[in-house]
Order: sequence, then structure tokens, then C-alpha cells
Amino acid sequence: MLLDAAREAAAEAVGCRADELVFTSSGTRAVHSGVAGVLAGRRRVGRHLIVSAVEHSSVLHAADTHEADGGTVTQVAVDRGGAVSVQAYADALRPDTALACLQSANHEVGTEQPVVEVAGVCREAGVPLLVDAAQSLGWGRVEGDWSVLTGSAHKWGGPSGVGLLVVRKGVRFAAQGPADERESGRAAGFENIPAIVAAAASLRAVRAEAAQEAVRLRELTERIRARVPRLVPDVEVVGDPARRLPGIVTFSCLYVDGETLLHELDRAGFSVSSGSSCTSSTLTPSHVLRAMGVLSEGNVRVSLPLGAAEDDVERFLEVLPGAVAGVREKLGAPVAETVVQDDVLVVDSLGKLCPIPVIELAKVIGDVPVGGLVRILADDEAARLDIPAWCEMRGQEYVGEEPAEKGTAYIVRRAT
Amino acid sequence: MLLDAAREAAAEAVGCRADELVFTSSGTRAVHSGVAGVLAGRRRVGRHLIVSAVEHSSVLHAADTHEADGGTVTQVAVDRGGAVSVQAYADALRPDTALACLQSANHEVGTEQPVVEVAGVCREAGVPLLVDAAQSLGWGRVEGDWSVLTGSAHKWGGPSGVGLLVVRKGVRFAAQGPADERESGRAAGFENIPAIVAAAASLRAVRAEAAQEAVRLRELTERIRARVPRLVPDVEVVGDPARRLPGIVTFSCLYVDGETLLHELDRAGFSVSSGSSCTSSTLTPSHVLRAMGVLSEGNVRVSLPLGAAEDDVERFLEVLPGAVAGVREKLGAPVAETVVQDDVLVVDSLGKLCPIPVIELAKVIGDVPVGGLVRILADDEAARLDIPAWCEMRGQEYVGEEPAEKGTAYIVRRAT
Repeated sequence: MLLDAAREAAAEAVGCRADELVFTSSGTRAVHSGVAGVLAGRRRVGRHLIVSAVEHSSVLHAADTHEADGGTVTQVAVDRGGAVSVQAYADALRPDTALACLQSANHEVGTEQPVVEVAGVCREAGVPLLVDAAQSLGWGRVEGDWSVLTGSAHKWGGPSGVGLLVVRKGVRFAAQGPADERESGRAAGFENIPAIVAAAASLRAVRAEAAQEAVRLRELTERIRARVPRLVPDVEVVGDPARRLPGIVTFSCLYVDGETLLHELDRAGFSVSSGSSCTSSTLTPSHVLRAMGVLSEGNVRVSLPLGAAEDDVERFLEVLPGAVAGVREKLGAPVAETVVQDDVLVVDSLGKLCPIPVIELAKVIGDVPVGGLVRILADDEAARLDIPAWCEMRGQEYVGEEPAEKGTAYIVRRAT
Repeated sequence: MLLDAAREAAAEAVGCRADELVFTSSGTRAVHSGVAGVLAGRRRVGRHLIVSAVEHSSVLHAADTHEADGGTVTQVAVDRGGAVSVQAYADALRPDTALACLQSANHEVGTEQPVVEVAGVCREAGVPLLVDAAQSLGWGRVEGDWSVLTGSAHKWGGPSGVGLLVVRKGVRFAAQGPADERESGRAAGFENIPAIVAAAASLRAVRAEAAQEAVRLRELTERIRARVPRLVPDVEVVGDPARRLPGIVTFSCLYVDGETLLHELDRAGFSVSSGSSCTSSTLTPSHVLRAMGVLSEGNVRVSLPLGAAEDDVERFLEVLPGAVAGVREKLGAPVAETVVQDDVLVVDSLGKLCPIPVIELAKVIGDVPVGGLVRILADDEAARLDIPAWCEMRGQEYVGEEPAEKGTAYIVRRAT
């Protein structure tokens, strides 16, 4: 009875029938089961899968598995704000497309995706759309004619260990892996009843205040978006300025090591995240920032929880400029070895991690005449993103890259 | 740090290295991932899988999936006490055996399996043994040279939503499905840290009192085992009398509808379970009781939790005889249609659910002379188990079954 009531409540919040919704052990599990189930159910149609380039890693991992298993995957690119275009999804659809996936909003930069429109073109083509709604479900229903939807309770402030998977009636779905009689054969194992009840109750509670809280948080994140670039030099605020989630704001700071900045802010009492190459556990730059083509160094993501206090935001804005300046001062020390070869200034940043190569580029760009070239040798993968991003921010011309004896040479022409 | 500490604590309790243990979202998930990972890792060796006939459904479902995928499965039979023989496992091993699975103890009747010895013969053959230790992990480590072990926190009194999967170093293992960098690539998705911490802490707490509590509960279940057959006529206590878990005792009552008896006991304040055909959600008799060849009708499983009070056990023993007698009285009413055909007494129990066919058989057996036959027509699947089991309990001869115009005819010869 508790499980039935929780299912009813969650279905009401999602906007689906109760028998279309099952509880899984996490949002990741919901995505993996949802993708695998539709791909298997529609195997006769074909094995083509469409995802956006900025999906959550759970979707991209499912796509990798599909590709390793002989399927084909199209990654739809995003614009500099992080959004896909409806036309790009329409163009990616093929007669053998089994499934398309699109997040409701991005988890790193908060950009909302045109789900209603993409669902429309998918429906027209007879292709089901799976919406990863993990980021937005606390704020409201996902509108549009989607076919499959996934969510994660801890993202709306509920407990860990509960995801949800909604499969609309009529969608061909063949659950993969061993199953039992629980959750319509779509999520095996003993249901985590206490957590499921808490998940449904918290979703209802959060939704009751969502409309009002969204307005308040949107004002606070707007404050951060507007004031950070004025308070801190050499900052790029990333993500769509208008179509975005209420509580997330992300910016990148030139010449800053993201991890060091996070530690500085942590000491001041602020726990923020980073999609920077310098903090993720895998030491590769965020695939989201890379797909957007924006600066990844010194990346900071501020997530305001429900009820976040205005005073805390103001104090964050007070603390931030000093924290960034302090990190930059520490990092300013390294001296690049520069030589002039054939009228090109060569900077050797080999063995140095981001943001050092960009700092060294910035230091020497004034040493060549306008029209002159700087050639930066670097072997940190992040340089490939950050040197072009710096050029765009600074109005310098990024000429391109070429393999060097060691690492890669990035060539920049002084334009101003 | 919390996750690391929980892993250390759980590994200490299991008796393995911390880097051999990952947390999953349930015991079922641990079994599914463990079985799939070893089968894939040892695919070159072959696709033969060995399981016992009385494994938990999660193991049997994984075996079904393997078979549907083209693999082969051997089910090892059990004796009337529910235990496998070591020789049967040795005989089942083949050159193409990829994996053998054996529970540490049975979840329905409490019988402990000869894991140490089976692990020995598997090791000799170079075949990894996966032990589903869900039932016993709270009581102590699983000894022996096993290769893979699974567990479930809610079984030792911990929270729902946490399983554990241990894969010994050196075991070929290829995790299946989409993975991420968490839990050694063996359990994708955000870790349920609060539940994992609680799971490890509760395992440690339970273990601290396990030795003492086992003695106490064993005495209480022994009391139930010994006194139920004296207090209630026509009862069969099932499961191994000596090699068994401390807190589980299971018995079956002739001429009783398990579901009705459960309701009676529930009204008296006792929450017990049943592996009877009459209470399981799928309305098929327990595969465990079927494999053991014991009576499934009127099946009652008493699980004494840690700290179960002696007074409650005594009160249960006071209430039980009246509850059983009440159910039997209600069920005694139906009158069977009997006819004599060619000197055979025919009982028509078509359309009647267990335990009615057995009740009707018991009523008429005295109406034929010793050596005479009774032919019971029945279409309830449980009759196939319960009529032979009744014959064995009553010293009557079960001749066999044959298809009838409707349902099945079960033939019994009066022996005494």
C-alpha cells in the first residue's frame, strides 16, 4: 500500500499513469534500464541511437555500451550556450533510429533543452524520445510528447538510492537482464520502501513550493551571473542566460586552477563544484564544457539549494574576488622558457598542467607585434580547449594546432 | 572517507580485502552483476553454469537469463533436508563450466549448505564458486575457498538498498552493462552513502552479538521444532535438523490453507511467512519445498529476529494449535464427489485449490480396502507435490499420476 501510494504520488508529479512508472535503485540505473529496454524493444527497427553531446555520463555510458555492442550512435552538438537545436535532432533522425535521448536541462551549466520541440520531431518520425529529467523534475513536469522519462530522487532533495523510470504505454520496451516480478519486471530486487516513500513525499513537498522558490533562486543566480564578471576580471559566465534552471550558475576564471579555488572557497565556508579538468576524478575536462567550446579552466559551478539565503549569496560575492586573486597570485610564479624561431615566439609549457599554459601565453602575447605568432608547446589535454577559449575571450586569433616533437603546438596570432 | 571506512568495515566482516568489495544497490543486483561478470569473464572457458535447485530467485533468474542467451545450466538437486551433496556438485562440473553458485544457507528452510567442501571441489577443478551469503552474513564469515560472494544489508538488519559484491583477486571478471568510475566499474550510479554507512555499522553491531545470540535463538527455534509436532497433529517440520541457521524454522501443516493460517496468526499478533502455493504472489508452490519433495500446503516460516523474546515464542506455541484447528475446521466442509469405477474409488477435486484435494483424499482412503486404489482428479498444480508428500507422511503408497480428461489423475494405493 505504501508503494502504491508512492507510485501514485510520483506519477501525479511526473504527469503519467501510475502503471507507467517504476522505481529503480538510482537515476543512473533508470537511464541504463530505459535506454537498454527501448533499444532491445525496437531492435527490428534498427540500432541507431541519438544523444546530445552534453548528456549526463549515465546516458553517454549507455551509448558507449551500445556502440561496443555493434550499434551506432549520433552525438548532436550544442551551441556555445549548451543547447541543442531542434533542427540538429531532426537531421540526425534516420529510418533505423531506435531511440533519441535528450536531457531536460544540463547538469553542469543549467541550460534548458528544447524538449517539447525535439519530442515533436521525434514523434513525427515515429522515434521514441527518452528525457533524462534528473535536473528539472523538482521544478515541474516535463511538457511535450516524450516517450520515456528518467529521474533521480536525490536531485530533488529526496534520499539517495531511488530513481524513477517512466515508459509511456505503447512504447516498445524489452527489459534487459535478469528480472523478477517486482516493478513490472523492470527493476529487480527488493524495493527500498522507506526511501521510495521519502522520495515521493519529498517530490510532492518540493513541488508545492517550486513556483515561488524558482522565482527567488532565479533572482539570486541572476545576481551572481551579472556581478561575477564585474567583480572578477577575466571571467566567462557559461550556459544560456535565459533558458536555464533556477538554481545553477557556472563560470570559468582564466589563469586559475579550479581545484585550488574550490579549496579556497571551501575554507570560506562555500561548497561549490567544478567541471574543470583540475578537479574531476578522471582528470579530463568536462565533456559538457568541451562540447560548448567554452573555457574549462578555473570552472566553478554554484548550485543554490532550495531555501538558499540571500545573505549567503552576498557573502559569496564578497569572498570570491579575493579567492580568485589569491589563486592567480600563487600561479603567477612559473616562468616560461621562450625562444624566437623563424619570427615565431615559442613558449615551452610541456609538463605543465592547466591553467599554466594559458597564463604563459597571456604573459608573452604582448612581446610579439600585432600580426606576430606565438607557438605554445603543451601536453596537458585541457590546453586544447582553453587556448582557443582564451583567444575568443581576448580577441586574439587562434590559428590552430599541430603535432610537435613532444605534445602539441598551439599557434596564436596577436590580433590586437 | 565515509565510503572507504564502510568498505574497510564490511571487508573485515566478510574476510576479504577492501579492494575486492563493492557496494551495490541490493543483494539481487549483487547476484545479477556477480553472475554476469564471471560468466562474461570466463566466456572462453565455456558457458556452463551450475546452481542448486534451492537458490534464491535472484540466482535462478540470472540462470534463466543465461540460458535464454544460449548458455547451459545444471540444477543440482537437494535432499529432503534441503542440502546439496558435495558429490553432486563434483559430478556437475565440466570442462566448460564457467561458474558454480551455492547459497551459504537456504532462505526458506534455514538449511546450511556444505560451502567449504563444494568450494574445495570447485577450486580443484579451477571453477570459481559464487556464494550467495545473504542469509548468513550477519552470523559470521563464510569459510572456505570461495571466489565470489554476495550479501544484502536488510537481511542482517541493515537498511534496504545496499548489497555487497566481493570478487576475489585473480577471478576473471568482466562487468556487464554501462559502467562508470564508481565501485571499480562494477556498480554504476551515485553511491547511497548514508545507507552504505548504516549497512557497515549494522553489520559490525550484529556481529558483535552474533555468537551469543545464535545460541539463544537456536534454543528457541529448537523449541518450536520439537514442540510443534507434539502440539499440532499432521505437521511436518522441514529443513535440516542440525545444519541450520539459528533463527529460521519452517513447518507444513496438512489440510491447511497457508494464507488463511497466516491471517489467523496475524490477528494473534504474529507475522510469519509462507512458501505455500496459497500465499506467494505468483500462486505457484515454493521452488524450495518442491525441490526438497516435502509438503508445501499449510507452510509456515517463523523467522526470529535478533532479540526475539522467549515469551513471544511461548505465546506463539500457545496460539498455533487453535489457529491450525480453526482453519482445518473451516476447510473440512467440502464434500467430494466419489464414484467407484473398475474397483477404483474416484475423487473429483477438479477446480478445488490446495489443500482441498489432500483433505478429500484423506477422507476417503479408509473407504477402500488395503491394497485398493484411490484416483484423485485435480487441476491445482500444488496437488502434484502435496499428494505424494501426504502419502509419505501417512505411509500410503503413491502410485503415480496420469493425464485425465480434465486436469491430472493422481493414483494412491491404500497400504495400511
